[in-house]
Amino acid sequence: MTRKIAVVVTARPSYGRFRSSLLTLAARTDVQTQLVLAGSSLLDRYGNIEPIVAADGLKVDARVHMLVEGENLITSAKTTGLGIIELSSVFSALKPDVVVTIADRYETLATSIAASYMNIPLAHIQGGEVTGNIDEKVRHANTKLADLHLVASENARDRVIRMGENPESVFVTGCPSIDIAADVLANPGLKGDLFKLYGGVGPEFSLDTPFLIILQHPVTTEFGQAGLQIQKTLEAVDAVGLPALWFWPNVDAGSDETSKGLRQFREQGRAKRIHFFKNMPPDDFLRICMKSAGVVGNSSVAIRECSFLGVPAVNIGSRQDGRDRGQNVVDVGYDADAIRGAIQRHVANGKSPRDCLYGRGDAGERIAEVLINAPLRIAKRLQY
Amino acid sequence: MTRKIAVVVTARPSYGRFRSSLLTLAARTDVQTQLVLAGSSLLDRYGNIEPIVAADGLKVDARVHMLVEGENLITSAKTTGLGIIELSSVFSALKPDVVVTIADRYETLATSIAASYMNIPLAHIQGGEVTGNIDEKVRHANTKLADLHLVASENARDRVIRMGENPESVFVTGCPSIDIAADVLANPGLKGDLFKLYGGVGPEFSLDTPFLIILQHPVTTEFGQAGLQIQKTLEAVDAVGLPALWFWPNVDAGSDETSKGLRQFREQGRAKRIHFFKNMPPDDFLRICMKSAGVVGNSSVAIRECSFLGVPAVNIGSRQDGRDRGQNVVDVGYDADAIRGAIQRHVANGKSPRDCLYGRGDAGERIAEVLINAPLRIAKRLQY
Amino acid sequence: MTRKIAVVVTARPSYGRFRSSLLTLAARTDVQTQLVLAGSSLLDRYGNIEPIVAADGLKVDARVHMLVEGENLITSAKTTGLGIIELSSVFSALKPDVVVTIADRYETLATSIAASYMNIPLAHIQGGEVTGNIDEKVRHANTKLADLHLVASENARDRVIRMGENPESVFVTGCPSIDIAADVLANPGLKGDLFKLYGGVGPEFSLDTPFLIILQHPVTTEFGQAGLQIQKTLEAVDAVGLPALWFWPNVDAGSDETSKGLRQFREQGRAKRIHFFKNMPPDDFLRICMKSAGVVGNSSVAIRECSFLGVPAVNIGSRQDGRDRGQNVVDVGYDADAIRGAIQRHVANGKSPRDCLYGRGDAGERIAEVLINAPLRIAKRLQY
Amino acid sequence: MTRKIAVVVTARPSYGRFRSSLLTLAARTDVQTQLVLAGSSLLDRYGNIEPIVAADGLKVDARVHMLVEGENLITSAKTTGLGIIELSSVFSALKPDVVVTIADRYETLATSIAASYMNIPLAHIQGGEVTGNIDEKVRHANTKLADLHLVASENARDRVIRMGENPESVFVTGCPSIDIAADVLANPGLKGDLFKLYGGVGPEFSLDTPFLIILQHPVTTEFGQAGLQIQKTLEAVDAVGLPALWFWPNVDAGSDETSKGLRQFREQGRAKRIHFFKNMPPDDFLRICMKSAGVVGNSSVAIRECSFLGVPAVNIGSRQDGRDRGQNVVDVGYDADAIRGAIQRHVANGKSPRDCLYGRGDAGERIAEVLINAPLRIAKRLQY
Repeated sequence: MTRKIAVVVTARPSYGRFRSSLLTLAARTDVQTQLVLAGSSLLDRYGNIEPIVAADGLKVDARVHMLVEGENLITSAKTTGLGIIELSSVFSALKPDVVVTIADRYETLATSIAASYMNIPLAHIQGGEVTGNIDEKVRHANTKLADLHLVASENARDRVIRMGENPESVFVTGCPSIDIAADVLANPGLKGDLFKLYGGVGPEFSLDTPFLIILQHPVTTEFGQAGLQIQKTLEAVDAVGLPALWFWPNVDAGSDETSKGLRQFREQGRAKRIHFFKNMPPDDFLRICMKSAGVVGNSSVAIRECSFLGVPAVNIGSRQDGRDRGQNVVDVGYDADAIRGAIQRHVANGKSPRDCLYGRGDAGERIAEVLINAPLRIAKRLQY
Repeated sequence: MTRKIAVVVTARPSYGRFRSSLLTLAARTDVQTQLVLAGSSLLDRYGNIEPIVAADGLKVDARVHMLVEGENLITSAKTTGLGIIELSSVFSALKPDVVVTIADRYETLATSIAASYMNIPLAHIQGGEVTGNIDEKVRHANTKLADLHLVASENARDRVIRMGENPESVFVTGCPSIDIAADVLANPGLKGDLFKLYGGVGPEFSLDTPFLIILQHPVTTEFGQAGLQIQKTLEAVDAVGLPALWFWPNVDAGSDETSKGLRQFREQGRAKRIHFFKNMPPDDFLRICMKSAGVVGNSSVAIRECSFLGVPAVNIGSRQDGRDRGQNVVDVGYDADAIRGAIQRHVANGKSPRDCLYGRGDAGERIAEVLINAPLRIAKRLQY
Repeated sequence: MTRKIAVVVTARPSYGRFRSSLLTLAARTDVQTQLVLAGSSLLDRYGNIEPIVAADGLKVDARVHMLVEGENLITSAKTTGLGIIELSSVFSALKPDVVVTIADRYETLATSIAASYMNIPLAHIQGGEVTGNIDEKVRHANTKLADLHLVASENARDRVIRMGENPESVFVTGCPSIDIAADVLANPGLKGDLFKLYGGVGPEFSLDTPFLIILQHPVTTEFGQAGLQIQKTLEAVDAVGLPALWFWPNVDAGSDETSKGLRQFREQGRAKRIHFFKNMPPDDFLRICMKSAGVVGNSSVAIRECSFLGVPAVNIGSRQDGRDRGQNVVDVGYDADAIRGAIQRHVANGKSPRDCLYGRGDAGERIAEVLINAPLRIAKRLQY
Repeated sequence: MTRKIAVVVTARPSYGRFRSSLLTLAARTDVQTQLVLAGSSLLDRYGNIEPIVAADGLKVDARVHMLVEGENLITSAKTTGLGIIELSSVFSALKPDVVVTIADRYETLATSIAASYMNIPLAHIQGGEVTGNIDEKVRHANTKLADLHLVASENARDRVIRMGENPESVFVTGCPSIDIAADVLANPGLKGDLFKLYGGVGPEFSLDTPFLIILQHPVTTEFGQAGLQIQKTLEAVDAVGLPALWFWPNVDAGSDETSKGLRQFREQGRAKRIHFFKNMPPDDFLRICMKSAGVVGNSSVAIRECSFLGVPAVNIGSRQDGRDRGQNVVDVGYDADAIRGAIQRHVANGKSPRDCLYGRGDAGERIAEVLINAPLRIAKRLQY
């Protein structure tokens, strides 16, 4: 019988990581892929991914509205609870042979619990990584609920096994985000005029002069400080004086504060060299990273994809603590002066060398291979 | 400021394990205990614990109706989802400094997620144990979400640390279930006539002649087989010929099947030596275990408390696989003949020696001590 | 395009009323019927209707687990809330052209709200009746949310129109429960030995000697009194001295109390002439009503179907206040002596004449006709 | 015993209407007011009312996060479902003697169901009004669930009674929105510079020259057309050539479309005479209405408060169909030319005469009086 593989996408950036394996799976006639779009991935405010999914030729099997608005801590919990209620009904209808989740967003535990409790084998992508905040609790809890582990690196594999997982259930596939980076490297041209394509607000400028890219998300364990933290980065970027493309944060506890900080800066007329974007397909996003002088903030893209692409990255604060780093990254605290200095020095060095720490660009194929062929079991036991 | 400690009880047997620490905490004036009763602990059908709690002199701070009826896999998931939604509101109102959960029942993840996502430090009792089914997924996921680990044994501590937890956050307190056993040992007399006190259906008999105690729960990863499994035990107990006290199963995926098996056996007039009980306070339950010739089934009580009390136990099937065993336990599969033989041989040997594998009876005090004094943090990171 | 008609069944007795229209609809090739089983209709404890549905040759399009256990007031509310969350997903997947709900059970408002809020036309069966308790709030709120009204009688039609509904949207179809009664009248033979067919507990007796049938549900607006109320009826029936077939109550706030009253009476050995049934297909239930000396309690069956069948009915308490009555009914309060006297006198009179107050047995066809052909609109306005 | 009155506010505009009765109640020492803030009333994106509530000196007794994001039809349903789940817990904790809800927003049914199902008397403000869309279904369903009706006018009273409610339970109190209007009439001065006080985006202009005020909400029964509809109004206002203050729409199915229409118009640089506000306290809002040349759109404020204030109003489309109108209103369809013409002609006529159709400004006191003194019952029956 054809194996049914259900992939649950709960946010725009997760789709980017699932995409290469989804396309590989969709091209196979011997498996049935079931695509579930959930949470913020369906919402305009966070960049509804339906048009991207349609452009990729993929069919959506279920849509799950589960985001309880509030962007604070209590609604993260409630969203997860509602997600379990909704996803259990979806799995009951789709009857998948395996459910796939990814990484460490808070609501991914809804997928893991719904699948586990219904005795459906669970595959988890990107386990065994260290990041040091609430995401880490989520990531490793996902590992303990998962039956199949598709990890980015040998280091990650080692950690998953040390946590007591059966070595036979852990597969090093590389990180799927590197697949996008590899595609972009082969196809570095933007699809058109950036500002026409993706709108946004703020001044437009030439991408041929040096410019920065900024992504800074709230840190959930530092709730209440997101407003101040974004302020520091805004001041530093302003002081550097380079034009910048700034991206709105993910929906998360604290994102309201971050957004408010950005809006105020803008309304005070201080964002005169900053163009704000809501979101962008991951490939075009990486294309502009490649063209940029450097990426600033606390996005994992700066650590992962940019290490492969050799783009200088200034990583601010604790959000990426513990994550394995390539040579493209320098770390700095929440201090405007320190951030400014780090940007100026690091950017001046120019491109960093390629680093294959997170994979070689074939993770999608490798993940698909495991999902199609690995034995599926739900009974597991601590291996010590 | 007085530390506020919220204890979430989601089922009758969990209350038995929380009881000694709750009583210790309640006697302290320097902390504030917040008792939350949730799930099946509030339902008559599963032995509403409100009267026991009131008799213990404890005040209930919140009641949470979260059990989605169905006793199947999908409702386990939905109950957990609803639990998160409800418990996050409770924590928002009670504002505890630390939330306490226990063991591995499926709905305990609702407590863990609600607390973690709201940045409230989470203490988990009975982590690091190995049992080999869905409960194990839940138990270790609880460990990965918890900030403080109160474990039953050195073995358990070792496993929690190997899973990557900070050794400073792991405390060996003994298993609180042994506290009840120790009390019972000091006070072995029943509070009155068993059958008058706890009703139930079926013949009454003298507890001075040899009799068996049976508890057999459905195994969630063997969903669909609970009916057959209980059948085997019924046949074996019938063949042994001793009178028996039989306890209805916990609410769990499959408990409908188990209950149906019991009812049918009874309605066919075959349960002529069996008295069925719905439930009983944990102390009187242990008192009759001590008086019994042996305990049969797959309850963890037979492994834990009975090892301390030296009561022979015949453990059936996979539910307790991997759990550390004392000398009082023999294991057997789902086979009527094998079960019958094991009961006859093992019971003939009489009492087993005391085993302090799971503690010495002071776990409640030790747990309370840690909850009152341990530093509370929410940031954690894999320790490798 | 084929009209898609979604029928939402939330409880065993509702299925009985939907059945004749469902069978009519299923036989039509020009419409698509979508059957949604929800709430207690899926639970063994309340008489899972899946086997009946399968025996009727109907396909189930969705199953909705929504019952929050507790049988108290707060869980009635929570069940309705969860029902809305679940049913909105079901309607989103099934995309019906019209959704059908029935009568006044509390959880029917979940169906009505989910459909209305999603701009799906809502048809409501059995509006415009007067019963005098919480059910009445629910029934008339359903009317105000519904776009199409399929009522049992001219009186009911008049009331729906007086409430401000457009007369063109109100159709007198008769009560579908009379359809079952008419079938039974044509086919009065039981399918076999009653006690073998439907099990239950308590003594068996010949159905050729006079016997009573008892159904008494808790009254939700008299919460806390259900235990006392059932006690009175138990005493009265005992005093009458006729053997009796007693049916367990619906799941509702208070049903735990009612059940406990029944169980205690039985465990005290006082139910020596009473056989208890959990449930029965509606047709066999009506067959035994026809054979009985009379029906006692507060079920609407005694008022509706029994008026058509001419079975004497003793109606106890307020639950059916205001409902139109045929000549077969006498009313009495919660007083053991009064109940006993009413049973003795009324039963002595023998069969009552047929009364077509609630229809002639063709409601299923008439309802199906309206659902298939009536214009479907969602905009409505108070007609005054 | 002191009567406990729980008022549930689910949105910013509702607070404005509750305010005068809340202040009257809060000043009384013989009752206890319990204020529950829920839904969008807590969200920055829709104008969090916490600061206003605090400035009014009121204490918040519970906060309920219940808004499932999506602003489409399915999330309206899910929000209501989640609201029932949450509010039933709140009522269980607060134990009010009466719960108060208002008007016809979709999520008000969550309040009504939670209260009704828990046998708590329900008071409904603003029943018996005719508006002609989904709101009307909600409003009249609220009436059928409510035990106490506090209506704005004799016409409304008449309709509520015709719907079958007991005349003794219906009180004409006037519309509380007129209380704000009366305060404003007595105190017409703005608290400061409008643009400084309330920010917003777009050009600032003198309020001493003629200007328009625009509020246009999506119509839920015309889902999918909100974008086109707002377009027509934008074009018309642009053609009139007067400067305008434009307010973002309520959160509702379709509000995303409306917001997108506004944003696009603005980003195309066509909103050169329009200043956009997110929200404003109701009193200052009415102050600028009084200063304006007229109010355009489909807000009920234009019909109610503006009739009392004598402000010319151009009402567009079906949203206010059936609502009683004063002399200040002209109606027009979704046609840019027709809207433009209506604005030009109507505004030229200047102020309209005062109309007390909706009350005289003392509704808050009258409502408080009824809530404090009216007998509270939960049993009700259709009065025909």
